Amino acid sequence: MRIAIDAMGGDHAPGLIVKGALEAAAEWPDTQLLLVGDTALIEKELGGVKPPNVTIIHADEVIGPDDEPVKAVRRKKTSSMVIAGQLVREGKAEAMLSAGNTGALMTTGLLVVGRIAGIERPALAPMLPTMDDVGVLALDLGANMDAKPEHLLQYGIMGSIFRTKIHGMDNPRVGLLNVGTEAMKGNELTKAAYELLEAAPINFVGNVEANGVLTRKCDVLVCDGFSGNIMLKAMEGTAGFLMKEIRNAFTSTWLTKIAALIVRPKMLQLKAKMDYKEYGAGLLLGVNGLVLKCHGSSDNKAVRNAVGKARTAIETQLIQSITAEMGRK
Amino acid sequence: MRIAIDAMGGDHAPGLIVKGALEAAAEWPDTQLLLVGDTALIEKELGGVKPPNVTIIHADEVIGPDDEPVKAVRRKKTSSMVIAGQLVREGKAEAMLSAGNTGALMTTGLLVVGRIAGIERPALAPMLPTMDDVGVLALDLGANMDAKPEHLLQYGIMGSIFRTKIHGMDNPRVGLLNVGTEAMKGNELTKAAYELLEAAPINFVGNVEANGVLTRKCDVLVCDGFSGNIMLKAMEGTAGFLMKEIRNAFTSTWLTKIAALIVRPKMLQLKAKMDYKEYGAGLLLGVNGLVLKCHGSSDNKAVRNAVGKARTAIETQLIQSITAEMGRK
Repeated sequence: MRIAIDAMGGDHAPGLIVKGALEAAAEWPDTQLLLVGDTALIEKELGGVKPPNVTIIHADEVIGPDDEPVKAVRRKKTSSMVIAGQLVREGKAEAMLSAGNTGALMTTGLLVVGRIAGIERPALAPMLPTMDDVGVLALDLGANMDAKPEHLLQYGIMGSIFRTKIHGMDNPRVGLLNVGTEAMKGNELTKAAYELLEAAPINFVGNVEANGVLTRKCDVLVCDGFSGNIMLKAMEGTAGFLMKEIRNAFTSTWLTKIAALIVRPKMLQLKAKMDYKEYGAGLLLGVNGLVLKCHGSSDNKAVRNAVGKARTAIETQLIQSITAEMGRK
Repeated sequence: MRIAIDAMGGDHAPGLIVKGALEAAAEWPDTQLLLVGDTALIEKELGGVKPPNVTIIHADEVIGPDDEPVKAVRRKKTSSMVIAGQLVREGKAEAMLSAGNTGALMTTGLLVVGRIAGIERPALAPMLPTMDDVGVLALDLGANMDAKPEHLLQYGIMGSIFRTKIHGMDNPRVGLLNVGTEAMKGNELTKAAYELLEAAPINFVGNVEANGVLTRKCDVLVCDGFSGNIMLKAMEGTAGFLMKEIRNAFTSTWLTKIAALIVRPKMLQLKAKMDYKEYGAGLLLGVNGLVLKCHGSSDNKAVRNAVGKARTAIETQLIQSITAEMGRK
């Protein structure tokens, strides 16, 4: 299998992106990694070592974090992100991943890679942390700000296939993000989506409140990109604030510092669990190829993990399954 | 001043509601408290002691937590909640408060008390906690699920008046809940509302993300009831989960229990700060009288505090100020 990596996107590009690619190349010798970006810069990072399963694909432009997404993708045809997208579109790679400009990556998915027939709006689908460490697949978390009920239905179907294929779940529970659990709760969008989801060939378990995510009241959480993103940032902000306050509580006196030492292992575990940076990445579901969004602050470990995720999605034929399901209707 | 208290609403009604009213009556002898509910039950709770500034107003029905709001308010004309609303409408009380059915209370505000001329949709406006303990007034947090841009504009104006009057703030900063801080971020609703808020005679500071609430990026946070409620429950769920995990971390061994003793005062402080139950209450802004929603689990302390808040709102002529501002246009 072949995975294209945007070597120029993200806070730590190209350094840690290339480093992560090398780690992935060593771990999975059967996987061809296509490093897309400035050849000279990538070669410098490689330091003269290029494993047989790593290929450099030159791109002389870069889409920056402040570029206007649609304009950038349309104009910067030779940017690393757009070229990586073209590799997927042309079947020269089964997957692409990027830690660059999120909006531009979603536009690349939509305009360069293209949609799966029957899917109107692709969705950004990251995993959110849960108490039991199994996680909830949430979609859409920001690809489209204004969703229609049919879009939410498609998110539910795609999410259900994702968890069945990628996580081997049997009959994953699909929930609808809402302000209450009763059937007729919510706004016009969720009320209409509820009816569609209820009639769909999925295991729809009804409305789920934002505080039901951590307790995993469902395996797939369907939401529009606006409220999903609001939810994610509320969780992130609260967790970040609390962890900071707790650190302050522990460092105030020498006595509390001793207390900190005692509970340190458990606290580090909790911190890792609640680090929403780890969860900012996800597939762009609904595009006709695997497009993986890595968090902007991705380091080599994040890149290596993303390659692992892309491999699983390729092996389990996720895209083919969604395409088949959409073609059935 | 006269404040009507729905003695029958809430998890601890009538017991702790009456207890809280007695505490408030003792603290503010200038305030007449009208306890609305079943006379026999209230008298039993009073235990033969009825201060001169406490009056019982009999109501022989109760709106329960599971009653369908609109139906309940229309049919249960002699319920404690509806009668309290009528007292405000008829000018026999300047304020009412209830810990009962939230939807029914909002309906009581809308149908019994009535709207301020010019306000299309009243909004539920609680204070959310911030790191600096000053708090953010957020509205709407659930009175209306589908908002129009003009509603968000009215929320901004009412919120600004609230913080000026109630908290003595000079030129409070009004922010719009959104998925990013840049001007053109968001969905159709927020994009249109942004323009209206920018042109309004308030100190509009632009878009604010959910993770900017705790750091008080604004003093008034404007949002539609759906996403506001999603945000609140996401914060609540995350804070609740983390506090629980931390308690678990501290109680796992005798050594960690010692650590817990050391940081206990600071942790209790933090727990109180992050207890969103404390923040579930708020005014229903936009109705033509003070309608205060107390959290369902309100105890005597919460009722006493709510009376204090109602007093401040009466003294500072909040409703009159909103009415005047709306009449100006």
